[in-house]
Amino acid sequence: MLKVSILSIGDEICIGQVLNSNAQWIAEKCTEIGIEVIFHLTVGDNKQRLIESLIFLEKSSDVIIMTGGLGPTSDDITKPILTEYFGDKLVFSDEVNADIEEFFRKREREISKMSLSQAEVPSKCRVIRNKLGTAPGMVFFEKERYYISLPGVPYEMKEMMETSVIPMLIEEIERRHESVVKYKTIYTSGIPESNLAELIGNEREFLKEGETLAYLPSTKGVRLRIGVPGPDFSSCDERLYEIEKTLISKISNFVLPLENKELTDTVCELLKTKKKTLAVAESCTGGMLGAEITSVSGASEFFIGGEITYSNWAKSARLNVQEKTLLEFGAVSEQTACEMAENVRKIFNTDFGISITGIAGPTGGSPEKPVGTVWIGLSSQEKTYAKKFVFGGNRNINRERAVYTALNELKKALVE
Amino acid sequence: MLKVSILSIGDEICIGQVLNSNAQWIAEKCTEIGIEVIFHLTVGDNKQRLIESLIFLEKSSDVIIMTGGLGPTSDDITKPILTEYFGDKLVFSDEVNADIEEFFRKREREISKMSLSQAEVPSKCRVIRNKLGTAPGMVFFEKERYYISLPGVPYEMKEMMETSVIPMLIEEIERRHESVVKYKTIYTSGIPESNLAELIGNEREFLKEGETLAYLPSTKGVRLRIGVPGPDFSSCDERLYEIEKTLISKISNFVLPLENKELTDTVCELLKTKKKTLAVAESCTGGMLGAEITSVSGASEFFIGGEITYSNWAKSARLNVQEKTLLEFGAVSEQTACEMAENVRKIFNTDFGISITGIAGPTGGSPEKPVGTVWIGLSSQEKTYAKKFVFGGNRNINRERAVYTALNELKKALVE
Repeated sequence: MLKVSILSIGDEICIGQVLNSNAQWIAEKCTEIGIEVIFHLTVGDNKQRLIESLIFLEKSSDVIIMTGGLGPTSDDITKPILTEYFGDKLVFSDEVNADIEEFFRKREREISKMSLSQAEVPSKCRVIRNKLGTAPGMVFFEKERYYISLPGVPYEMKEMMETSVIPMLIEEIERRHESVVKYKTIYTSGIPESNLAELIGNEREFLKEGETLAYLPSTKGVRLRIGVPGPDFSSCDERLYEIEKTLISKISNFVLPLENKELTDTVCELLKTKKKTLAVAESCTGGMLGAEITSVSGASEFFIGGEITYSNWAKSARLNVQEKTLLEFGAVSEQTACEMAENVRKIFNTDFGISITGIAGPTGGSPEKPVGTVWIGLSSQEKTYAKKFVFGGNRNINRERAVYTALNELKKALVE
Repeated sequence: MLKVSILSIGDEICIGQVLNSNAQWIAEKCTEIGIEVIFHLTVGDNKQRLIESLIFLEKSSDVIIMTGGLGPTSDDITKPILTEYFGDKLVFSDEVNADIEEFFRKREREISKMSLSQAEVPSKCRVIRNKLGTAPGMVFFEKERYYISLPGVPYEMKEMMETSVIPMLIEEIERRHESVVKYKTIYTSGIPESNLAELIGNEREFLKEGETLAYLPSTKGVRLRIGVPGPDFSSCDERLYEIEKTLISKISNFVLPLENKELTDTVCELLKTKKKTLAVAESCTGGMLGAEITSVSGASEFFIGGEITYSNWAKSARLNVQEKTLLEFGAVSEQTACEMAENVRKIFNTDFGISITGIAGPTGGSPEKPVGTVWIGLSSQEKTYAKKFVFGGNRNINRERAVYTALNELKKALVE
């Protein structure tokens, strides 16, 4: 397989001021076309470290894709360093100069002198034209490998990747007759990673040499990523399908039913296609479940609304939870969760009502009801029930897990 | 300055399936305490490349912070590779074993056999206990530098960084008498970055050589980070104070009043100390404002609850918004926002009521009310008003900005 490394250049990434979303995007695009991404490396605007980075990456990479450091200001060092690194010199490019003039003309702005310096490019490189900005991209072929330098501005970089770099890399793969790896992700919910691993057992028993299975846990659920190598993409499909079938036979109860959809999208899609409506009653999550559901565009088709009943007063006054329930069993109890779920369903006149009431922490716990104890209630016309969960993480993790556990209960009701 | 590199281990990052938010977070924390972050390197679950990475990073780093590859499954390779790399062997740790048993006991779950394998740790390492998961962290001191290995699960990693690694690094900086950069962050809200920059003007006019000012924008507001170099932390304080005073004189209206507190914490603290109560009425944010407020522990002292009125039916039935208001002006209007805020305040009998109603997108926009149009209402006993904002980002950015803009209106009312 063609081996690519991604080199991100810029102090703002190195010191953690911004997330490196460029590297993630480039890695995803490369993986899609069957390239192996072996390293992402980030370095600040520092000459010595940038050269060390190039020397390290070129040991094992066929292609190094750089982003950043191409602006017109003095802290933008990529172009002069590459010029020096390849023993090259800058030459004035009429083509790039015309692009820059056009850029400013279209925007009815005066050309700044600084921008004109961008028309100078190393003589050995092939220029990638920048339709959305003034810094051109550069492709060097030196020491039997490609060095590609792109701007750090995400939309400029993406446009150049899509129109120039990706087609060039596909050509290179075909020229070399390189092999590829194709991936497929299975989404699960309602089961921790270690229990899933026990159900699946030793994956080497059903995987062939070179095939991989990765567990990717989050509060939403565990994703399983299968990887299958092959001479080209279409030849990987049969094995991917076989491995998926094997996995699903072991863990079918926990696999989300819709292809490539995580839990929230799955629940929303099921509500929509089954024409069911929903209302929520939230205590410790304070609106997080409603916020998660309405993060999906089109939620107004099935989500009517809900009650945030953070106080006992609100639970009685707004959800008609009986005062004797709150007194006898407490706000964090099976009885309260059931009344909340059933009453919110009736008040909002929906098919389903979900409730969450718990102790998110860090305070409020007791020996009988430790921090992380959450009751989740679900009510439909057929039945109302509540289940207890003990999450035991920190405040916001407990709240997130409560939200996704509630959605998982609703998913189960919807596929029944 | 102490030099740190961050090594992220995991196929899911390398192939671009997930964003590397751990590296950004760690870099930010290290920068805050005056450490120089020189490289971020990401590598897949691959033995040879992980070893190449260690050899590269140790050339110039005093500390290498690794995350990932510590789970109980076979694709988690960090522990065996570090054990081999340092010529060490695994030993059973009673302490870690007890932590794992406690972890499962608290969650009322059976211990899985796989999880017990996590009680084995290299003999040369100092263990960092994991309060939120089963994989312990490890600190090696070898070849005159620190190698720190942490889990990839963000909340486990963050807890261990905050309680163990950061204090250890601060001690190391003091022990070495390294020169430092001390940072101070000023939190603002209610003003975009470019307007803030205009008020502040050219920072070189009030900064000395080596001192820095960085603008860190987010949906919550813009943070300003001042950096002052010095031989040790305490010698930087005077200049930090002077620069802070200069900045505040230029932008006082937008600086949040409580030291080191962002907008949400500020609002919650002000409600608590002024003994004021709050209820919320949310349409397009679907509960996000309530969720944000209740992310703060102790919110039950001032937050009573709220209404998620995602449908027009809920706005009338649960918040008594007049049907003629909805018909005449629409759900996204000054009149609806005012009625929502005033009525939620009266229904919940609180000092303040806030409402949010808008078009989050991507659908539902019109020429008069484009996607991103949001009305925010605020009601107190003295007055009720609503303001229009046009955010124009994507769905979830619009919703986040609505939440923080609403909190900013409440902040203004609380400091009046």
